[in-house]
Amino acid sequence: MPTQKEILENLDTIEVPGVKRSLVKMNLIRDVSISDGKVDIQLSSTALSPEYQKELQGKINKVIGTVIGITEVNVSFVDSKPKDRNDVGHVIAIMSGKGGVGKSLVAGLTAVALKRKGYSVGILDADITGPSIPKMFGLKGPPNGNENGLLPIITESGIEVMSINLLLPVEDHAVIWRGPLIAGAITQFWEEVLWGKLDYMVVDLPPGTADAPLTVLQSLPISGIIIVTTPQDLTTMVVKKAVNMAQQMKKSIIGVVENMSYLYVPEINKKIELFGKSRGEETAKAAGAPFLGQIPIDTALAKLCDEGKIERYDSEIITNLSSSLEKMIPVQEKK
Amino acid sequence: MPTQKEILENLDTIEVPGVKRSLVKMNLIRDVSISDGKVDIQLSSTALSPEYQKELQGKINKVIGTVIGITEVNVSFVDSKPKDRNDVGHVIAIMSGKGGVGKSLVAGLTAVALKRKGYSVGILDADITGPSIPKMFGLKGPPNGNENGLLPIITESGIEVMSINLLLPVEDHAVIWRGPLIAGAITQFWEEVLWGKLDYMVVDLPPGTADAPLTVLQSLPISGIIIVTTPQDLTTMVVKKAVNMAQQMKKSIIGVVENMSYLYVPEINKKIELFGKSRGEETAKAAGAPFLGQIPIDTALAKLCDEGKIERYDSEIITNLSSSLEKMIPVQEKK
Repeated sequence: MPTQKEILENLDTIEVPGVKRSLVKMNLIRDVSISDGKVDIQLSSTALSPEYQKELQGKINKVIGTVIGITEVNVSFVDSKPKDRNDVGHVIAIMSGKGGVGKSLVAGLTAVALKRKGYSVGILDADITGPSIPKMFGLKGPPNGNENGLLPIITESGIEVMSINLLLPVEDHAVIWRGPLIAGAITQFWEEVLWGKLDYMVVDLPPGTADAPLTVLQSLPISGIIIVTTPQDLTTMVVKKAVNMAQQMKKSIIGVVENMSYLYVPEINKKIELFGKSRGEETAKAAGAPFLGQIPIDTALAKLCDEGKIERYDSEIITNLSSSLEKMIPVQEKK
Repeated sequence: MPTQKEILENLDTIEVPGVKRSLVKMNLIRDVSISDGKVDIQLSSTALSPEYQKELQGKINKVIGTVIGITEVNVSFVDSKPKDRNDVGHVIAIMSGKGGVGKSLVAGLTAVALKRKGYSVGILDADITGPSIPKMFGLKGPPNGNENGLLPIITESGIEVMSINLLLPVEDHAVIWRGPLIAGAITQFWEEVLWGKLDYMVVDLPPGTADAPLTVLQSLPISGIIIVTTPQDLTTMVVKKAVNMAQQMKKSIIGVVENMSYLYVPEINKKIELFGKSRGEETAKAAGAPFLGQIPIDTALAKLCDEGKIERYDSEIITNLSSSLEKMIPVQEKK
């Protein structure tokens, strides 16, 4: 007779359609019981369309039906809400107060960095009026789902993503919403998307210190915040507002990343500090957090982002980001 | 006997304390009547502290008392709200949807351009959570005023400015407000600041298409919108959202400005397109508006902005901006 563990190992080979992650990793298994060669498998139907449910039923019958000792397979579905199936280890918010400093870039690179280390990672794009994540990863919607919830869209390397732009009919459609609707959308992304089991969730915040950042810091179980800045004095001032907000709300700041630090011009073998001397260390000091590193202006990186291929970027900053995060917010066991 | 016109010409030499603009230009004269060498001058006390009222009374007595034919001067004050004393020719909103593309820079340069042409100009900084205008112009608060309203702060060249950062005890203090409070602050800047007579009011919008831009487009009498973009494809997508918002709200787009178009490296006499090929023309086409020009990445400009000296910048784009605006939103007579 196979054990429950063996059945689960087999179920872990069955991918949820469209998600590239298994039934076990999406936390859809509710119960597995075995007696006299008969196995009853209870699944959560969360975010699974009837077609997906049927497809899974077929796959399970095929895979489990061939396990030695099993003579009968019963698959049943029960309803549940995504938030009851989600099991997220750490939530990391990327914040800056100022727009256009590279929050989405740092959010993307952080997710890529953690994924490369073998962690399961999701990105919740909380920038409802100016979402950049789907374009950066080359993602298109609409996501699949049912009346209970939505499945995330999966990147090339397997990062789960949800963003308002995946739900719009056209990507440049304007979302002209006041604060409460924006806060509502963010809460829905957290509660009504089936993220399953994740080691890290990276949240890309919009600029400012108004509704969206406030909702995220108040409603999501934030483990820590990464602050993004640039060398301009003007930026430093606005970024310090975000630091103050985080401190007022008693959230821990993991570190500070400086973007657009310099441009390297190979023809003259020179680093040009386009926006002035680096002030990353200074901002980190004000934030009472370590300085995690600089990202130079890199035309290759800008191009990869425009082409939706950020996952192909390789640079020291990626290694730095994952090592810092592993050190500061370690996961007990990979999910 | 002097005529009313002569008295008004004399009053036009008297500056409102702290504003560098005259009683006439601040639209504070309510009535001037002359009979038998006696002149009665009725002023609006709007936004004038008791000290300022006393100071003005003294100045008026001195100036008008020496006009030939005048034997007695009576100055009285009546209360009125700033919005009843404001007379703004054209309101121009600077918008982009995307953060950090240079909205505040374009707002600042547009105001500088119009001021250099001799127009009276104000800047309403509608970016409540990330205000950049005061720093760019080297301005400090707090503004003067009374229970009826506030006086704007004046730049070196005489541009009137109001921004939340002029009202904060410390410039990096975070304004952690939800949408309705932000919308309220913008409406107050419009209605409760004594702008007086202005040819152009430039409104610097925050990123996004949520509360702040929505309030400005719904509540202020916008003559036209300038859209700011950068060459990145990612930016173009988000900027198009702002264009769509403007179009849905039936607001006229005056033109498109592209920022960070290229970097000129003198050592190799080369323009480097750091963020890819220019897409300004394309965005202008989508907006159905003319392309007003490119602003390169200029370390000198970044430095001037950090030092609060944007008014000292000189470049072709400034001339272009004022000519385009004069052509598209002409003023009948300078105020």
